[in-house]
Amino acid sequence: MENLKLNFMDLDNVISNDVWKESLNENQKYLEHIIENLHELKNKNEAKEDIGWLNIDEWSNNQILNKITDRANYVQQTSDLFVLIGVGGSNQAARSVIDSLGVRKNGIEVVYAGNNLSSHYIQKILQYCENRSVHINVIAKNFETLEPGLSFRVFREFLYKKYGEEAKNRITVTGTKGSLLEELAIEYGYYFLDFPDNIGGRFTALSEVGLFPMAVAGLDIQSMITGAKQLQKELESSNIENIAFQYAVYRNELLKKGFAIEGLAFFEPQLYYFSKWWVQLFAESEGKEGKGIFPVSLNYTEDLHSVGQYVQEGQRFLFETFIHIQDKQQDLTIKKDMLNDRFDYLDNKSLNAVNDIAFQATLAAHSNDGIPCNRIILPELNEFYYGQLFYFFEFSVYVSGLILGVNPFNQPGVENYKQIMFKGLERSF
Amino acid sequence: MENLKLNFMDLDNVISNDVWKESLNENQKYLEHIIENLHELKNKNEAKEDIGWLNIDEWSNNQILNKITDRANYVQQTSDLFVLIGVGGSNQAARSVIDSLGVRKNGIEVVYAGNNLSSHYIQKILQYCENRSVHINVIAKNFETLEPGLSFRVFREFLYKKYGEEAKNRITVTGTKGSLLEELAIEYGYYFLDFPDNIGGRFTALSEVGLFPMAVAGLDIQSMITGAKQLQKELESSNIENIAFQYAVYRNELLKKGFAIEGLAFFEPQLYYFSKWWVQLFAESEGKEGKGIFPVSLNYTEDLHSVGQYVQEGQRFLFETFIHIQDKQQDLTIKKDMLNDRFDYLDNKSLNAVNDIAFQATLAAHSNDGIPCNRIILPELNEFYYGQLFYFFEFSVYVSGLILGVNPFNQPGVENYKQIMFKGLERSF
Repeated sequence: MENLKLNFMDLDNVISNDVWKESLNENQKYLEHIIENLHELKNKNEAKEDIGWLNIDEWSNNQILNKITDRANYVQQTSDLFVLIGVGGSNQAARSVIDSLGVRKNGIEVVYAGNNLSSHYIQKILQYCENRSVHINVIAKNFETLEPGLSFRVFREFLYKKYGEEAKNRITVTGTKGSLLEELAIEYGYYFLDFPDNIGGRFTALSEVGLFPMAVAGLDIQSMITGAKQLQKELESSNIENIAFQYAVYRNELLKKGFAIEGLAFFEPQLYYFSKWWVQLFAESEGKEGKGIFPVSLNYTEDLHSVGQYVQEGQRFLFETFIHIQDKQQDLTIKKDMLNDRFDYLDNKSLNAVNDIAFQATLAAHSNDGIPCNRIILPELNEFYYGQLFYFFEFSVYVSGLILGVNPFNQPGVENYKQIMFKGLERSF
Repeated sequence: MENLKLNFMDLDNVISNDVWKESLNENQKYLEHIIENLHELKNKNEAKEDIGWLNIDEWSNNQILNKITDRANYVQQTSDLFVLIGVGGSNQAARSVIDSLGVRKNGIEVVYAGNNLSSHYIQKILQYCENRSVHINVIAKNFETLEPGLSFRVFREFLYKKYGEEAKNRITVTGTKGSLLEELAIEYGYYFLDFPDNIGGRFTALSEVGLFPMAVAGLDIQSMITGAKQLQKELESSNIENIAFQYAVYRNELLKKGFAIEGLAFFEPQLYYFSKWWVQLFAESEGKEGKGIFPVSLNYTEDLHSVGQYVQEGQRFLFETFIHIQDKQQDLTIKKDMLNDRFDYLDNKSLNAVNDIAFQATLAAHSNDGIPCNRIILPELNEFYYGQLFYFFEFSVYVSGLILGVNPFNQPGVENYKQIMFKGLERSF
């Protein structure tokens, strides 16, 4: 299968040819630095802080995939509902693919907890667990985050009440080796999965963190890794044609021109949770030191009837990255109607074709009007291309952060409210 | 019950006292203009273009509420699944309350169609309709919008196949009097509801458009109107203490200082669809002539682990409007855990109290750091206060648009892509 592609609309009108060439050349050093890191990781296979994800093979080689698959099979055979307890990087990647592609053959249903502090929400999920055969997976790198810690308590209590000591077989914990979670797993007999110590939460899609819940839902994680690795091969080049590099350069040039908001636009609601993953990746990686592009999700065509007006005619500081799916498998023919509903122009058209015309029209209207637009083109929407999307954007944000001049791997700004909160909660450490 | 309240954090630090007083006085003329319009509407009860919503009684008096309730009772007795076919203003208000408060006594489940062009999505909803007793409600002011037109075809076909001629009793159409939808309703025997001709889509929450689906879900629409009317009474004052006016002045002053993004922040995921309604209201009303604040939804605490980093340390051009719910009915006590999970500080705490501490900490951290913050304070989250929220923000955006110097009631920018799209679809008019 082909790799995903990148396409800029009217690039010359958006960024002058000279500026573009100069920027590519000037920033090439960052790309070279990253490729060098990748080579080092591959050759030495050493844990290097924060960039473990760059070398896909370290955290999703066949041995690891087999371990994940075995455990997923066990979960599928012994339960029919899987509660993923995690927040941010610990759930967004898995959720985006599971919500999009649905539960596949042999997979079981997945619900989410530990991602907020709402009593209303948690009780709804607890209720949903009644009369089901439940397995829980708590995912937390350092296990200090409030939301998953709190929900782990609530759902563990639920399990022990329901199953007694057998509950321990219905718990999988994903944490860093040597962490408290591993200690608890050993002491209480919970199955333990590895949260890579050299990967930050938002970059864990293609590790046990993201892959295990996907496998439980029956998704083809092997195909996802194949897709990602095939793209890794293409991106392992310090040539300025590198598409992840080009995307990173492009958005930084736009930021310089005052385009401070980037919308990830898509015409399939299936991509909504993926856009949330993307928002976190870019907001946390770049939003620091007073810098960065503010990322937003644009769920078209629905959002054309909402922020669409603003995008077209409001302040001109937003640009769009469209996810374009070329071949959608499911289709529906719009039949001629018995009523004179004045929608005759839809007679016998394919719904996918109509959606595609709406997509092309939006792209043209926005682009013609001077809104910078680019497209990530996917031949299909499946596990293979989700693997590519994850790796593409992770690679891009690494380059992009370096160009911007920030450390794309930390998130110092989330500490401020936590300190005040822990004081309010009388946490003593 | 009390009305909702507005509270600014550290207003003096955000906008100097002199500027604030001056701005209130300077803009008071717009408030006076609006109050005058409201008086006129009340006295003459005349259709006045675009601002029919301002006088709540015109479109949700007892006679109308009785009509809605009767029809809702009929739908509840004859079906168990309600498909709302509409997009933007035709579904967001109803969806926000139904998703938040859930299906109440005697209510039936509601699902949504006509809000996108996704074959994957529409087929999922169609499948969900199998083996259910289905009623559909198509809502469209002029019935030219593609998404609901297309879905109406698909779901009407489904109904006629399933029920034969009896299908006609399972269709309610909401359109403007004298429109094609009314003609079709008369010709084919569909029940007809009134889409107010003097209200634009995004302002229709408290009319038959928004209220009928809510009533079908068993929600207390009488209480919603009582809440809205009680607030209308308070806002019917051209005094500069008027809270909707103050909110409008505040955000325009912030825009002048470069705060170009407003986040609606909430700590109950129940408010997510309400935030989508709010985003449409402000984006479409203000995003024109190169002006306006870009509205975004902040689903905390989950989004603190995502855009939270950006809000705290990224470009300083975002301000926050928090929805603060004081008394949440449902609660849960966090029990002491048998494990040494290092979350002892949660022992025996109320989950709502913990969530509230997270809220207060976020507000303090952001506000202390110079992010302008304000709060809309609701004693509870129920129909009464949803009625107030709708009216408060509609009233505010009217003032705010006038201050900004735009017409808050049109949306010329959504025409551009439509023209190209209709050409692509070979629509001949």
